[in-house]
Amino acid sequence: MSDNGIHDLGYARLDTDRAGRTGDPEVVYGAGKTPQQVVEILRTLHEAHPDRAVLATRLTDEAVAAVTSAMPEAVVDDVARAVTLGPLPRARGTVAVVSAGTSDGPVAAEAALTARVYGAEVRMVTDVGVAGLHRVLAARDDLASADCLVVVAGMEGALPSVVGGLTGVPLVAVPTSVGYGASFGGIAALLGMLNSCAPGVTVVNIDNGYGAGVFAARVARNARQHP
Amino acid sequence: MSDNGIHDLGYARLDTDRAGRTGDPEVVYGAGKTPQQVVEILRTLHEAHPDRAVLATRLTDEAVAAVTSAMPEAVVDDVARAVTLGPLPRARGTVAVVSAGTSDGPVAAEAALTARVYGAEVRMVTDVGVAGLHRVLAARDDLASADCLVVVAGMEGALPSVVGGLTGVPLVAVPTSVGYGASFGGIAALLGMLNSCAPGVTVVNIDNGYGAGVFAARVARNARQHP
Amino acid sequence: MSDNGIHDLGYARLDTDRAGRTGDPEVVYGAGKTPQQVVEILRTLHEAHPDRAVLATRLTDEAVAAVTSAMPEAVVDDVARAVTLGPLPRARGTVAVVSAGTSDGPVAAEAALTARVYGAEVRMVTDVGVAGLHRVLAARDDLASADCLVVVAGMEGALPSVVGGLTGVPLVAVPTSVGYGASFGGIAALLGMLNSCAPGVTVVNIDNGYGAGVFAARVARNARQHP
Amino acid sequence: MSDNGIHDLGYARLDTDRAGRTGDPEVVYGAGKTPQQVVEILRTLHEAHPDRAVLATRLTDEAVAAVTSAMPEAVVDDVARAVTLGPLPRARGTVAVVSAGTSDGPVAAEAALTARVYGAEVRMVTDVGVAGLHRVLAARDDLASADCLVVVAGMEGALPSVVGGLTGVPLVAVPTSVGYGASFGGIAALLGMLNSCAPGVTVVNIDNGYGAGVFAARVARNARQHP
Amino acid sequence: MSDNGIHDLGYARLDTDRAGRTGDPEVVYGAGKTPQQVVEILRTLHEAHPDRAVLATRLTDEAVAAVTSAMPEAVVDDVARAVTLGPLPRARGTVAVVSAGTSDGPVAAEAALTARVYGAEVRMVTDVGVAGLHRVLAARDDLASADCLVVVAGMEGALPSVVGGLTGVPLVAVPTSVGYGASFGGIAALLGMLNSCAPGVTVVNIDNGYGAGVFAARVARNARQHP
Amino acid sequence: MSDNGIHDLGYARLDTDRAGRTGDPEVVYGAGKTPQQVVEILRTLHEAHPDRAVLATRLTDEAVAAVTSAMPEAVVDDVARAVTLGPLPRARGTVAVVSAGTSDGPVAAEAALTARVYGAEVRMVTDVGVAGLHRVLAARDDLASADCLVVVAGMEGALPSVVGGLTGVPLVAVPTSVGYGASFGGIAALLGMLNSCAPGVTVVNIDNGYGAGVFAARVARNARQHP
Amino acid sequence: MSDNGIHDLGYARLDTDRAGRTGDPEVVYGAGKTPQQVVEILRTLHEAHPDRAVLATRLTDEAVAAVTSAMPEAVVDDVARAVTLGPLPRARGTVAVVSAGTSDGPVAAEAALTARVYGAEVRMVTDVGVAGLHRVLAARDDLASADCLVVVAGMEGALPSVVGGLTGVPLVAVPTSVGYGASFGGIAALLGMLNSCAPGVTVVNIDNGYGAGVFAARVARNARQHP
Amino acid sequence: MSDNGIHDLGYARLDTDRAGRTGDPEVVYGAGKTPQQVVEILRTLHEAHPDRAVLATRLTDEAVAAVTSAMPEAVVDDVARAVTLGPLPRARGTVAVVSAGTSDGPVAAEAALTARVYGAEVRMVTDVGVAGLHRVLAARDDLASADCLVVVAGMEGALPSVVGGLTGVPLVAVPTSVGYGASFGGIAALLGMLNSCAPGVTVVNIDNGYGAGVFAARVARNARQHP
Repeated sequence: MSDNGIHDLGYARLDTDRAGRTGDPEVVYGAGKTPQQVVEILRTLHEAHPDRAVLATRLTDEAVAAVTSAMPEAVVDDVARAVTLGPLPRARGTVAVVSAGTSDGPVAAEAALTARVYGAEVRMVTDVGVAGLHRVLAARDDLASADCLVVVAGMEGALPSVVGGLTGVPLVAVPTSVGYGASFGGIAALLGMLNSCAPGVTVVNIDNGYGAGVFAARVARNARQHP
Repeated sequence: MSDNGIHDLGYARLDTDRAGRTGDPEVVYGAGKTPQQVVEILRTLHEAHPDRAVLATRLTDEAVAAVTSAMPEAVVDDVARAVTLGPLPRARGTVAVVSAGTSDGPVAAEAALTARVYGAEVRMVTDVGVAGLHRVLAARDDLASADCLVVVAGMEGALPSVVGGLTGVPLVAVPTSVGYGASFGGIAALLGMLNSCAPGVTVVNIDNGYGAGVFAARVARNARQHP
Repeated sequence: MSDNGIHDLGYARLDTDRAGRTGDPEVVYGAGKTPQQVVEILRTLHEAHPDRAVLATRLTDEAVAAVTSAMPEAVVDDVARAVTLGPLPRARGTVAVVSAGTSDGPVAAEAALTARVYGAEVRMVTDVGVAGLHRVLAARDDLASADCLVVVAGMEGALPSVVGGLTGVPLVAVPTSVGYGASFGGIAALLGMLNSCAPGVTVVNIDNGYGAGVFAARVARNARQHP
Repeated sequence: MSDNGIHDLGYARLDTDRAGRTGDPEVVYGAGKTPQQVVEILRTLHEAHPDRAVLATRLTDEAVAAVTSAMPEAVVDDVARAVTLGPLPRARGTVAVVSAGTSDGPVAAEAALTARVYGAEVRMVTDVGVAGLHRVLAARDDLASADCLVVVAGMEGALPSVVGGLTGVPLVAVPTSVGYGASFGGIAALLGMLNSCAPGVTVVNIDNGYGAGVFAARVARNARQHP
Repeated sequence: MSDNGIHDLGYARLDTDRAGRTGDPEVVYGAGKTPQQVVEILRTLHEAHPDRAVLATRLTDEAVAAVTSAMPEAVVDDVARAVTLGPLPRARGTVAVVSAGTSDGPVAAEAALTARVYGAEVRMVTDVGVAGLHRVLAARDDLASADCLVVVAGMEGALPSVVGGLTGVPLVAVPTSVGYGASFGGIAALLGMLNSCAPGVTVVNIDNGYGAGVFAARVARNARQHP
Repeated sequence: MSDNGIHDLGYARLDTDRAGRTGDPEVVYGAGKTPQQVVEILRTLHEAHPDRAVLATRLTDEAVAAVTSAMPEAVVDDVARAVTLGPLPRARGTVAVVSAGTSDGPVAAEAALTARVYGAEVRMVTDVGVAGLHRVLAARDDLASADCLVVVAGMEGALPSVVGGLTGVPLVAVPTSVGYGASFGGIAALLGMLNSCAPGVTVVNIDNGYGAGVFAARVARNARQHP
Repeated sequence: MSDNGIHDLGYARLDTDRAGRTGDPEVVYGAGKTPQQVVEILRTLHEAHPDRAVLATRLTDEAVAAVTSAMPEAVVDDVARAVTLGPLPRARGTVAVVSAGTSDGPVAAEAALTARVYGAEVRMVTDVGVAGLHRVLAARDDLASADCLVVVAGMEGALPSVVGGLTGVPLVAVPTSVGYGASFGGIAALLGMLNSCAPGVTVVNIDNGYGAGVFAARVARNARQHP
Repeated sequence: MSDNGIHDLGYARLDTDRAGRTGDPEVVYGAGKTPQQVVEILRTLHEAHPDRAVLATRLTDEAVAAVTSAMPEAVVDDVARAVTLGPLPRARGTVAVVSAGTSDGPVAAEAALTARVYGAEVRMVTDVGVAGLHRVLAARDDLASADCLVVVAGMEGALPSVVGGLTGVPLVAVPTSVGYGASFGGIAALLGMLNSCAPGVTVVNIDNGYGAGVFAARVARNARQHP
């Protein structure tokens, strides 16, 4: 049933007019939803917005299988555990997604895909942990020429401090739950980033690649063109 | 003693070339410094950058008095506990600083002054707590037309969620230590902001108006001109 | 064996006179009990109170199946994971149960069913998260005309602050464990609600829809009749 | 300057129409305000509402002195650290404020005064710690005949569980910061109350007598008349 | 291999002379051990001390099955998840084990069995939660005539405060992990007990029925005979 | 005003019959009381119990001075910050109070004085930190011949584990707030003691020498006479 | 693909020149890697460094099986859950690895194997918990003659304090997650070690035997030869 | 009174033979001691060890004044808040003390002075925060040629990770309480260091420059001579 831009599926009420209000795409947060619910919501949103990609995140293997079976044109990002349906928007501005270790890959991939679906160009810089500074330093130009940085790290979460000292580009830090013992599921990285000695570092929730991607895309797509 | 852009005061080594590298102004973090140290560092930085304002934050009453006595041309912001010395830069882009209660005023003022010194136009929206929604709603246009939002709140820190649902403008949330009991010096607000249900909210450390101002100015001064 | 209002099942001693003392119904807390124990306790309590519904909460799928198999007249609430056995009491006063997101549904349903079994009329207001204020505002009349509000929210738990600013009706907030990372299993929502800037908000344990329902029903069924 | 029910004092904007909207009195939260600010706000609110008491809480000795000097008709509650100005409203319904130890006195007094100013009759039951059960049991009739209970306790915060098992009256628990060591400034009492085995106990922030008083008065003044 | 009272099993070195030094029995802590290891250690200790019961605690179902298959004379306590092998010592003095709810049963049973194996008479007082005071009060004589009390409770852990106010008998409190949400796996009960307003309450680790039983038996078996 | 064993001083109600019920002395907890209140309560209790010492703990310098001025016969314990008034009871059984460092002295002294006033003989064993094992080992006989041990330690709180491995005497551990940084005001010592690998260690609140003394005296004065 | 000492496997970039830079061996951290990935990385690193052992830690049963099947010459350490491939280096200096209980065995074994692969001689001292001091004291000479000590303990983590008081040898403490309840997964042991009253104790993350082994080997292999 | 190497001052028992046993100097921990006590202990230890420097740390201004007045030959370290009395030992091996910001200076100075008094050569590397990598990189040779590193940092505590990736020298990290808000008095830095991605980093308590200095000196003075 659809009425006034609200589409009621019984277990969810979809606000199919939101894209018009904010310029952002529609998104399905897959955690806690059945594969069938993911399929149905994706289809409903896609039919309401056939000209712009819809994003589904945090999908189980079963949900991914259900989506690709029902909608073979869906594009799967295995690392990010996410799918998109429909054409990606034209990209404006550039987000660089920087990550420390290979275990941080899924969060970085979620940030990257989100930023792309939200309308920004994305550049990945991976495996640049602070214990090997030459790799960070080698990427300095890629970092300085972006419009917004997303820096993903677990364990002690020191990478944003190092990157933040290299450039003046706005930087969003994403702590991950990678680690053990006194990492307390990402608290150590979260606190490290909140206390960064590099000025101008902002932080999102642990493992929240999606939120960082939304924020960075909004910054980048509104940025002035580089000459 | 000055050498290679490093000015050594004995108790501090000033990197007087940083402005050239990042486009940001010089800043003195006043906490833990004696009034005499604040005066001396401010003077040294001002002499190295006479054409651009230097900022000093987190000043005690004694430090403010020492600065105004030694440098009568310094401009004091009583609410922010900060001073500037030298001409403010031309402003590009707009930062809106939104705060929930009057007790959040000093943190909001620090964010606003910082954003201005870092090169952005600043607009203040004060006293718009979530328990009085009509005040938030009345400010909606001011919020939507900014290039970056800084939202300051203590206690439960709910304001960024409400503001973040009204616009798609990049939003930096600043938790404050305002509260008592189970606010735990700002932890309640910090956690509330990190878990905001509004997508694209990023967060800085408790009471860190300075960091939010730096970040917001960097976003705003790089933003496209509105037509 | 039954004696002096105490019915001893070996693994539990049922106080079958409690209803008389407090006016409240009998309740089986299902967590940690075997399906057979749930069935036996329900049956014993129902036989002692055939004229008033008995409630069983926090049931596993196996327990629900065992109850409906043994007592086909039991009424199952799938969302609340609860069953009732016997006629519901006449309702006096109105409790409005308000929830933020669909994931908060089970806790809201438990609160609603509990309030009904404890003797109040119940009205549900769902899916009114603070990031979409128009939905909260549209429900304002439903909220203001209730005798007690139960407001259920996870993540940052901001909904009670917003609702509490709209009316002067007594408001019980229920934090849920919905969220991830720095939500810490509901701590963020709990702290947010304890620090609400709206006066007169009270709070129960994380996910404790039952406790909120008991409290709200006691308030509502004792409330003056609206003219 | 006053406009549309908003009175702007420069450092605060007073919403002088709120009483009309919610039926609640005006309140000045004294923490963090200068004695002069307390005096000025009290006077402004009193002039706007001469027919109903205005309440000021959390006052320092200096603020109390400034208020009584400027407005000799103000009534001081030394234990609650609060003053009222103007006639108390007619009382409807009864709130019983129960406290465990003498150190919990100030919080209990704040709750009692608040409930009275918000329109309820108040009855105090003091010094009934759980380590001396005969005192709690002796007060059972006073508790059972109230319309709402406010139970104040520090240390292990066990009193609400004991009181909650004696009656079915709605019960708001207030943890206090009384204690030392592993009481952690009231956390032990807060957690104890949130986990109470007595159903239907709700909780407010540590030392928040004001919030409990507001809530209890709203319940009591809306309660049915006892025959 | 056995030497100087040390029996080396490869994965454990058993100190078979300890009983002589301290008067306490031998104990096998079953957590983290394979069924075969439990059997072998029990047998070795039993052979070294055929005249006094050996205790094994925290056993899995598999370990219990392995023990009873290998040593049919072993006595199993299903609730405590423990077995004894060999004759119990003559009991001296009395320990009363008091518990709040049926979910606290396994911890209470572990305390009771341990106290018995360590040489004290044991009396159980179950299901006396503080929300039903008449049950606690009815047990007053049983409590006052014991030489040491073990009081077991989860959730808010208030029972030791109530019991401790009724008698002057030494009281050891055992917090259990029974609860959910803000009980934090027993922390709420632990803090409640550490902050008990009843003087002379001591506390052991969460769920540590064994430690409480050891302590209480040592107190009771050394107590003066009642006339 | 005195009635039925209750003596009402306005700010406190004294239960002057308690000694008869429990065999314990009367105690004034001085924290948060004015010197005049301490004097008045002490005098009232002493007049009600002239034949048995009354104890006042946690006294400020001012309170000690007020007491000795008003009642020159009061006996002051400077280290414990406590006074007694009236004759000490005949001692039965022995409590050994063991402490790790000189900074733990005040807590140890409070435990020792309390145990003596509650009716036990007391023996002090000081300065036996675990980093100097020879001192602990040298005191082994003094420890083994006591009826109850009180072991006081700050920092890592390891002393109870070492002492508990040397004897089978009941042992109450008292964590102190001595330490800095990650000692978190005594939490490190508290956790260390709760997790002691020596069986039969029980624990009281941080710095709670009084509670440990009460408990130990109850154990010791009820202990069998050594031959 | 290999280039400039970087070998890119797609899912990991191996820095095959690191050994030359630091003198340390190559290590595969097995947690979160598939058996096939472990095999492939081990093989690549071994081919790059055929003359020096490569270490793989934190392996699942499946990974161990895959490694031994693919590379039968690999040496498995069942307790440490680790394998080595290639010849061990000549040992210089001695590391003594001391552990408190048998449950600490896997962490101690990881530390020992790591220290050996990193180039030190290793001596194990097991089962010397502080509740049985004679065992620690008997090992005093073995401890004093080492070049670096690794002390592994869970629960209260007191062993480093006792060992640190016996010798002046550099001591690295490893807290383990052994324990339950208020051990909080190793936090109690971690805090105990950070607050050790023995000077010169340093600490690594919970269960981080690998890190302690690396550190200790670096100290030992650089130590002066004993005469 | 002196006996068997124990010198009893009444308020402290000095173990004047310790130096002989461990090779370490005598130290007075000044926190919580009166100036007169510091003077007396220093003098007693100096008289027992006239040929080797005695160290006093954590001194107040008053204690420093009392020491220099009584013993003009004492050498004061104003930054470290410490004094030494007597000749420094011959230095063997080198400790490099590295610090991030000027606020970390006192902790770094305490570590440096301690390491020197304990017998190592010391080299200071200051003001090398990770947000300015060129300063760390410029110091690389000084770091690589030391026998042990002490790395001091507050806020996010990232410096040890960066330094630990540059060399294979044993590294002790010292978190400081420098920071605000979510630094929680040094917890953020402590967690960051415990979770360092650089292998072989060990950690001491917050602000514990003394402990790090002891450890580092023990490593350095036992190190092989560099060719």
